[in-house]
Amino acid sequence: MTAVDIALETPEALVERMARAGRAAQRELARLSDSDKSAALHAAAQALRDAEGDILAANARDLAAGEANGLTKAMLDRLRLDPGRLAGIADAVDQVARLPDPVGQVIDTVDRPNGLKLARVRVPIGLIGIIYESRPNVTADAAALCLRSGNAVLLRGGSEAVHSNRAIHAALVEGLKAAGAPADAIQLVPTQDRAVVGAMLTAAGFIDMIVPRGGKSLVARVQDDARVPVLAHLDGICHTYIHSAADPDMASAIALNAKMRRTGICGAMETLLLDAQFPKSSAVLAALLDSGCELRGDQRARAIDPRVLPAGANDWDTEYLDAILSVAVVDGLDGALEHIERHSSHHTDAIVTEDTAAAQRFLDEVDSAIVMVNASTQFADGGEFGLGAEIGIATGRLHARGPVALEGLTTYKWQVRGTGQVRP
Amino acid sequence: MTAVDIALETPEALVERMARAGRAAQRELARLSDSDKSAALHAAAQALRDAEGDILAANARDLAAGEANGLTKAMLDRLRLDPGRLAGIADAVDQVARLPDPVGQVIDTVDRPNGLKLARVRVPIGLIGIIYESRPNVTADAAALCLRSGNAVLLRGGSEAVHSNRAIHAALVEGLKAAGAPADAIQLVPTQDRAVVGAMLTAAGFIDMIVPRGGKSLVARVQDDARVPVLAHLDGICHTYIHSAADPDMASAIALNAKMRRTGICGAMETLLLDAQFPKSSAVLAALLDSGCELRGDQRARAIDPRVLPAGANDWDTEYLDAILSVAVVDGLDGALEHIERHSSHHTDAIVTEDTAAAQRFLDEVDSAIVMVNASTQFADGGEFGLGAEIGIATGRLHARGPVALEGLTTYKWQVRGTGQVRP
Repeated sequence: MTAVDIALETPEALVERMARAGRAAQRELARLSDSDKSAALHAAAQALRDAEGDILAANARDLAAGEANGLTKAMLDRLRLDPGRLAGIADAVDQVARLPDPVGQVIDTVDRPNGLKLARVRVPIGLIGIIYESRPNVTADAAALCLRSGNAVLLRGGSEAVHSNRAIHAALVEGLKAAGAPADAIQLVPTQDRAVVGAMLTAAGFIDMIVPRGGKSLVARVQDDARVPVLAHLDGICHTYIHSAADPDMASAIALNAKMRRTGICGAMETLLLDAQFPKSSAVLAALLDSGCELRGDQRARAIDPRVLPAGANDWDTEYLDAILSVAVVDGLDGALEHIERHSSHHTDAIVTEDTAAAQRFLDEVDSAIVMVNASTQFADGGEFGLGAEIGIATGRLHARGPVALEGLTTYKWQVRGTGQVRP
Repeated sequence: MTAVDIALETPEALVERMARAGRAAQRELARLSDSDKSAALHAAAQALRDAEGDILAANARDLAAGEANGLTKAMLDRLRLDPGRLAGIADAVDQVARLPDPVGQVIDTVDRPNGLKLARVRVPIGLIGIIYESRPNVTADAAALCLRSGNAVLLRGGSEAVHSNRAIHAALVEGLKAAGAPADAIQLVPTQDRAVVGAMLTAAGFIDMIVPRGGKSLVARVQDDARVPVLAHLDGICHTYIHSAADPDMASAIALNAKMRRTGICGAMETLLLDAQFPKSSAVLAALLDSGCELRGDQRARAIDPRVLPAGANDWDTEYLDAILSVAVVDGLDGALEHIERHSSHHTDAIVTEDTAAAQRFLDEVDSAIVMVNASTQFADGGEFGLGAEIGIATGRLHARGPVALEGLTTYKWQVRGTGQVRP
């Protein structure tokens, strides 16, 4: 179709047309072997390297437009590519190509007394929609994970990165073609019309799952409007509870790392819970304050260190994503569990303790996607979990929870082998 | 609350109040051991037996009202309880009590180079909403499956069975109390106000999953209106493809059983695909016609047997749930795959063949929840799959697919055990 034809198409028709093409490509993908899919991704990675000049030139156009439009320094940094970052993107595609293919794995088998043999076998989900903001690396990362797991992908990136995304997408498609894989397995929405996002969110039956990648307002909009299943987390209000039997040095080190290593990630601690019986709370707070963290606490926390500012009622439900931390003093494990039950976003919560019974109760009773003992919440990440990569972190309760990588991009079918059985 | 208080409550407030009570009960359930939950279900089964008089009297009131309201014979039969059926319901609860508890199962573990030890552990989903029609056995069946997997349940049954459901629910709660389990783990919506169904469907954050149990219009309404994840299937348009290399006797036996054993279940075959090269098609059609099945076919099917009526364009997409079958003649496996891709509801599809390569291609390429070789589609059932029971059959692609029993009523959490690790 020409650009004019596309401009005349309704958003719904555009999504349906692209979805049909994607689903057809997915059926072709399903017939490729593990090594064919892997080879296609290696070819895509090489194509990204070969297109370095085009991609960086396109990125320069986005950066110039972003500066003219007054994007913040942080936004421009998320948007910026350079030879090193682009090499990293290509390397990440190679790394996904080397991950084991989940498709075809037998989850379990059942042999029935009547001779029927059943197997649950992993299969791709189908067509995955990715809706993302200004990071152009998502174009390659998400496409690679979807393709490795046998899914087709429909990408809709942010306007700020439109030229970068088109250049990266063009290179990926070149790679697929060179390897004989279906080009429509990776499609990029060719218009920035925001109505297309709405059409994707309501394309039940055409798109099987949507993964939003971006800030809270994007995720909230996707979750509110979607009629297609969504894999996402809205908030990362993560807690670290310093139990009375915590090792004091470990408590300080973990609290400092959980908050300050990187303050802007979803696994960053946002609330510190100090057990009233923990004897070294002042050292923990001093370490945080000395590192430049603003503390907002309840009355008992402020009594420990006068530099702690008073917390408002909203602080316990706030994801700061900044060098700010709310601090509450709680009475024992029960007090901690109660606070977490009320305020956690059920992303990641941790306890620091040398008491194994307390640790086990925390692991059992805190109802979050990730529960940790004696470790920094900043480990909440698919790479750190050994998954090789992640398409996102899910705080919903169905399908997949916590860091989601290739397995979360598959479903299963039941294969039943008989010898003529009829049901009595 | 009194009946008047409940009547003054908005549907949303009612659902929120019951959901909060259910979620609190679920947290209590989570602390019960495998044997505690099992004992609670055995006590509930015994309570059903002890309440036989009350339950049958309540059922008699529903039957009388149903007759007065002109319910069909089939509807009255679905509604009817007698001592034998009630004993069967109690026995089914005992059977669920004896199934292995999925909660606490370790799905997999990961040991990281930095010493972190990860485990994915099965946990209950939380609060399950069941919306169902006139079968009072669902009250006990669904409650038992939810409880066995550590979930609380919010039941909303059909108006026709209101007295039966209340009596069964009262008995189940007596059993829970006798065993020291939280009574609010099994709640029945106390009003038949249809707005409560709408409030349940939109109670995201309060109800974790909805399972509709009933006819297609109920399921369609639930799927259309729900903002909470739904586990369901809408249609069971199941195909049986008789390949050119099928055993002729097996082909006739399977076709007859797949259609005629019970015509009203979702796993019943609705379309028969005859390979143009299969030499014994006339015998297969004759067996079906002789058993009283109406056949609606394409021109080539009508050429095989003149008793085959002409099929209309809609027949290929119709779930008859009756002794009616659409019949098409297809050209080879590719023709069958194409027909199935276009018309299947992706519930259950089968091939009959002695050619293992054709069988494997069918298993690999038909994208349905259940794919079968040389067996009747009527085996599509959790009990027949060895799951012990089923909460339903899912044709969605996420979370669970095909027959869903206890495992599908669980999710997982990541438990991470460290020794003070911080992220570099």
